[in-house]
Amino acid sequence: MRTGVWLVGGRGSVAAATVAGTAGVRAGALPATGLVSELPAFRDVPLPALDDLVFGGHDPATEGLVKRVERLAADGVVPHGLPALVRTDLEAADAEIRPGLTGTGRTAGTADAAVDALAADIADFRRRTGAADVVVINVASTEPPARPHPAHASWELLGAALHRPDDAGVLPPSSLYACAALRAGCPFVDFTPSTGARLPALDELARRQGLAYAGSDGKTGETLVKSVLAPMFALRALSVRSWSGTNLLGGGDGAALADPRRAAAKIRSKDRLLREQLGGPVQGGVHIHEVPDLGEWKTAWDHIGFEGFLGARMTLQFVWQGCDSALAAPLVLDLARFTALAHRSGVGGPVPELGFFFKDPVASAEHDLNRQFDELVTWARGLSGAHR
Amino acid sequence: MRTGVWLVGGRGSVAAATVAGTAGVRAGALPATGLVSELPAFRDVPLPALDDLVFGGHDPATEGLVKRVERLAADGVVPHGLPALVRTDLEAADAEIRPGLTGTGRTAGTADAAVDALAADIADFRRRTGAADVVVINVASTEPPARPHPAHASWELLGAALHRPDDAGVLPPSSLYACAALRAGCPFVDFTPSTGARLPALDELARRQGLAYAGSDGKTGETLVKSVLAPMFALRALSVRSWSGTNLLGGGDGAALADPRRAAAKIRSKDRLLREQLGGPVQGGVHIHEVPDLGEWKTAWDHIGFEGFLGARMTLQFVWQGCDSALAAPLVLDLARFTALAHRSGVGGPVPELGFFFKDPVASAEHDLNRQFDELVTWARGLSGAHR
Amino acid sequence: MRTGVWLVGGRGSVAAATVAGTAGVRAGALPATGLVSELPAFRDVPLPALDDLVFGGHDPATEGLVKRVERLAADGVVPHGLPALVRTDLEAADAEIRPGLTGTGRTAGTADAAVDALAADIADFRRRTGAADVVVINVASTEPPARPHPAHASWELLGAALHRPDDAGVLPPSSLYACAALRAGCPFVDFTPSTGARLPALDELARRQGLAYAGSDGKTGETLVKSVLAPMFALRALSVRSWSGTNLLGGGDGAALADPRRAAAKIRSKDRLLREQLGGPVQGGVHIHEVPDLGEWKTAWDHIGFEGFLGARMTLQFVWQGCDSALAAPLVLDLARFTALAHRSGVGGPVPELGFFFKDPVASAEHDLNRQFDELVTWARGLSGAHR
Amino acid sequence: MRTGVWLVGGRGSVAAATVAGTAGVRAGALPATGLVSELPAFRDVPLPALDDLVFGGHDPATEGLVKRVERLAADGVVPHGLPALVRTDLEAADAEIRPGLTGTGRTAGTADAAVDALAADIADFRRRTGAADVVVINVASTEPPARPHPAHASWELLGAALHRPDDAGVLPPSSLYACAALRAGCPFVDFTPSTGARLPALDELARRQGLAYAGSDGKTGETLVKSVLAPMFALRALSVRSWSGTNLLGGGDGAALADPRRAAAKIRSKDRLLREQLGGPVQGGVHIHEVPDLGEWKTAWDHIGFEGFLGARMTLQFVWQGCDSALAAPLVLDLARFTALAHRSGVGGPVPELGFFFKDPVASAEHDLNRQFDELVTWARGLSGAHR
Repeated sequence: MRTGVWLVGGRGSVAAATVAGTAGVRAGALPATGLVSELPAFRDVPLPALDDLVFGGHDPATEGLVKRVERLAADGVVPHGLPALVRTDLEAADAEIRPGLTGTGRTAGTADAAVDALAADIADFRRRTGAADVVVINVASTEPPARPHPAHASWELLGAALHRPDDAGVLPPSSLYACAALRAGCPFVDFTPSTGARLPALDELARRQGLAYAGSDGKTGETLVKSVLAPMFALRALSVRSWSGTNLLGGGDGAALADPRRAAAKIRSKDRLLREQLGGPVQGGVHIHEVPDLGEWKTAWDHIGFEGFLGARMTLQFVWQGCDSALAAPLVLDLARFTALAHRSGVGGPVPELGFFFKDPVASAEHDLNRQFDELVTWARGLSGAHR
Repeated sequence: MRTGVWLVGGRGSVAAATVAGTAGVRAGALPATGLVSELPAFRDVPLPALDDLVFGGHDPATEGLVKRVERLAADGVVPHGLPALVRTDLEAADAEIRPGLTGTGRTAGTADAAVDALAADIADFRRRTGAADVVVINVASTEPPARPHPAHASWELLGAALHRPDDAGVLPPSSLYACAALRAGCPFVDFTPSTGARLPALDELARRQGLAYAGSDGKTGETLVKSVLAPMFALRALSVRSWSGTNLLGGGDGAALADPRRAAAKIRSKDRLLREQLGGPVQGGVHIHEVPDLGEWKTAWDHIGFEGFLGARMTLQFVWQGCDSALAAPLVLDLARFTALAHRSGVGGPVPELGFFFKDPVASAEHDLNRQFDELVTWARGLSGAHR
Repeated sequence: MRTGVWLVGGRGSVAAATVAGTAGVRAGALPATGLVSELPAFRDVPLPALDDLVFGGHDPATEGLVKRVERLAADGVVPHGLPALVRTDLEAADAEIRPGLTGTGRTAGTADAAVDALAADIADFRRRTGAADVVVINVASTEPPARPHPAHASWELLGAALHRPDDAGVLPPSSLYACAALRAGCPFVDFTPSTGARLPALDELARRQGLAYAGSDGKTGETLVKSVLAPMFALRALSVRSWSGTNLLGGGDGAALADPRRAAAKIRSKDRLLREQLGGPVQGGVHIHEVPDLGEWKTAWDHIGFEGFLGARMTLQFVWQGCDSALAAPLVLDLARFTALAHRSGVGGPVPELGFFFKDPVASAEHDLNRQFDELVTWARGLSGAHR
Repeated sequence: MRTGVWLVGGRGSVAAATVAGTAGVRAGALPATGLVSELPAFRDVPLPALDDLVFGGHDPATEGLVKRVERLAADGVVPHGLPALVRTDLEAADAEIRPGLTGTGRTAGTADAAVDALAADIADFRRRTGAADVVVINVASTEPPARPHPAHASWELLGAALHRPDDAGVLPPSSLYACAALRAGCPFVDFTPSTGARLPALDELARRQGLAYAGSDGKTGETLVKSVLAPMFALRALSVRSWSGTNLLGGGDGAALADPRRAAAKIRSKDRLLREQLGGPVQGGVHIHEVPDLGEWKTAWDHIGFEGFLGARMTLQFVWQGCDSALAAPLVLDLARFTALAHRSGVGGPVPELGFFFKDPVASAEHDLNRQFDELVTWARGLSGAHR
């Protein structure tokens, strides 16, 4: 039984790493390192097999996946022989990519017409590939925070606004994609901090349609480390006095986040963990700086000042040097598999149990990685009996 | 109801920080930061109150606790006003310190006579202070690994050897103290990597007498961080390729560990976590270097090389700058309180549920800090109904 | 022969550390560590003796120097016994502090009247203390960059504007102080990145009056390290691809620099070195983040990406943990001594040879610390024969 | 006019990077990054052109240079297309490699016979390639420190010992190679900390024959950084209290230095700088740990504790992540060119002016990188008029 994975941003580096990596693992050329869904804890959970995934997506970019993966190989992200080895798979996925919304985020006409067109692309893909289900995952660049609009409050108001030409901008692109996924009957995952399905109106629609949605912002690097260090201080009754995080980003991500409005969305997402985990705001903040020369690589430095018994002041610092696309790709696959399972099991509305994968989990205030993992295991095993 | 805390190494910096800190918290001059036993999770657990602790110990050093705490204040470990504020408490504890074994670790005569003398010191302290129970905790310098001896295998053999003048060296000092604690009817905790009660013969004795023992090697700094980072890699299916830890130690600890035989004991203890947590040996190792100028402060640098999806090579590094005595002291208090509770609840033999506090936990292969904490909470709450 | 040191910001932490440290060295309680002017290279240079320095200054703050130094002692910057030991010296300096410009930077009336009043304070101090010369040094908080004004172009225009009530804001506070120093016949040093004497009109005045001025922005920490690392890459023909500096500042400095306009001034000053030393702009930039909890302590992390032979990409990172007031104070003393010598030797106008001490040296594009030191030595020795 | 470069260790990774990089620069495929001899300061110095260098060497390894460079490409040290591009040059150099001494460092017979055979290899290479001069450079693995032998004291004693079968081990391999270079009339450079020419007897021989020799231990990474940071502290009168360096090495270097006797030689060389630059021993030391997984990459962490004015304790830490072969190769080329120039200019005996390139410079106690560079420039320019 095939499962479709529809990637919004289907020609970006995360998508390219996802498709190339899946093909490499299938071909036996790469181990399944980094794939949470392959851990022994999920051995008996009937997740879709990697072999059964088919890829497509939306992306206005014209550079094809083969070229994109060759560039990843030149940057040292992907092994050198891989592009040639998996060329057929890359071409197959590339043939399933449609332009979607243009760079401005707007097609002519009403927002509803745009949603219809996007939904039709997804439905066509499902038909063409014979996929039983399609999971739509947003891996496009981070958007600025959405401009508030009264129609965001309920589906009744939003449904009406979508038809008004004057309200063509009622939804940011990520939410148009989320809306299109729901209209096509597909669950939706936001791997970015963009708005996506996280508006009362879209939440209402997802619940009403019984379609799962999850997000936001894949926990790939610095925040992953924070999600184990913050509980450590708490378990030892040590008082965190300040926590300053600095992220040096290259590549497309860095360029997108050089826009202060987009950076604000990202930082809000990254800030949430410490605030909720340490029980209040903590001095320091999260900072993002663009360094194009770093390419696909990202370096984060966190400086944590804490106090112990007797008022002693101490520090912990860490430096994370990671390759964002190689960290994100396996999580995208994990989310596709877990969300497909949820969908087949009849789960609708927000899925807090997928919080393990996110910096800013929907419908959950749990940020402790260990507890999140336990929730994920319990939930996934619980679903296993409940297939449609 | 008073609880006695008998510290082997009672005039060292950990002991000094323990006694001074307790007095400071009692006086309302210091918060209870760093005390795990004060976390909300233990609110309903009937632990001995801080106000009810009385201190004594063994130490051949002649510099009194007041001077020692003044030196800690000069080093910035203890707030400046504290030594004057808590002078009475320091003098009271200091008056309860007996020389114990001399620097050579040997008194004249048989080992049994030495154990008797040590046990008598502890019993006198209990009588004099009216403590219901006394917990004996070893916070002395790390010993070299014990020389193997056939009499370590059972209490029958050891009991006999203790009486033989030719076998005066059958036990290392830490084990003589452990033996004395058991002889005095007291539970024993080893906060160092020394042998202590971890010999088959002493384990047998502790079980037979229904006395609890716990250890080894308080998890104060670098290993604490490792105990949350190692599970993080595992939960994300990331493959750890190398993990190199370097510890710069000053003060007495650094000097003791400049002796390669003592360092070996420490490193063995520190190594255990990664080996057991990552499912096998990992390249890199743990290294200890003495830098006297660091005084009470310790700096650890860990370099972790790991591999993700697509074979991408990444690194995480951390630098921990901590004050060992300020980190150790609250754990000593926690251990005194939890062990006293265990003793009153009739717990005998090794206590794996105290593994949360140790690098090298007795009778446990669990090193994941979160799981250790859950075990501790469940165990402590379970004991609450079961008082003698 | 007494030499006056007039500190603008005379009750801030740098001033407090300067006065307390001088007194401590005089009293034999502290070594002269950090004092460049005490190096053997200057043994035969007739600098004013530390014993002959007398302190005064401008500061609207009302907390006296004794209290300020006691707070430095509580923060661990100054040894604990010091405030009591040097109390007399602190009180003497404190008695010589006048409010100067208020927080708004404006006294009533024209700018000229303000300059007159400030100059009178300095002249009174000289008279009262019998100092042969007074060096005025700005150690106040960083200002925002000065608003451009046509009268900055020449002393003729500025002299006229100072008298116009409508142009009361023609000069920022640091330049009013610089102008007052010159009017009182004193050389002026700007230890901050504020405008100070660096306007064509004031440069012209200083040259015309034969009064030395120097600046800007004391090279105390991160930039000091950069001034030796950047030449290292150049000497080895290694190509620096990016250099990102992140500064975590506490204390008053952090709060002042939380104002983005003030931070801009600081960053411009800090950026200059790499641009001029590496022959062009380099990716990355300098970032300043406020972390009040760090107090007097500052942590900087620099990440340098560079390329070597064969195109190999490598990185160097450094973390600097320094106490800014303890780093700045000896340089303030050095500058007072060298500038007094220059003054006595008839040096007027900008002094590029003092560039060794500054991030943003006047009249110099040399940033290599070693070459700057050689220039300083040659210059100081050359002055030695030329006393007025 | 051709210049021969004879590399002892001619099939190791440094040699491979040297030959491949030279070919890549010649072919216009690589910039001359990292080549000091290409800096503007040496524009008018008549160094041999890169185009005129020909390579050969001694190495008992059988894996050819083509394979070795392909492995460097797989490790990301050398660009992927390079091995194919420069294959002809690699094969040409490989054809000039002779086995030399076997792994045990001993051929049958007397040491003199071994030296003769090695010298003949070098002379044959000179003849075959028509090189005017040949510079012999040792880039083999680090040896243990040489066993002292009375014959090391003078050439008279050594010359005799070389002929005695019982004294076949009088010289370590690196010194046999040095002796062979001198016998063949070639200058000798030791890029490793091995003994090489640094014995009184060989120094005497080199002087007598008017042949230059230089060394020891190329200053490629951690020590390079130290050579600018140590003077920085000195120029600022800051007191270095401790300096701890930890080096994680992979590849062959790490394996060789896992032998404590070899590590001792390396550490002695690395230690010299701080001791001589800071005017005495400093706490901390240099430590080397093997981490095979790091391959050609090396990571060093240095922790420097220092004291400033007012006794304030501060720290500087740095982390160097470099590729040793890419750092070493251009220095090998620089040394070949400068040494060839020296040879043509009639320079004999130790060359302290090449200290810029070494951790442990012969006949020099200068370790300040800037002063070393100035010495190099002055010397090289001075030689320019003096060609034979």
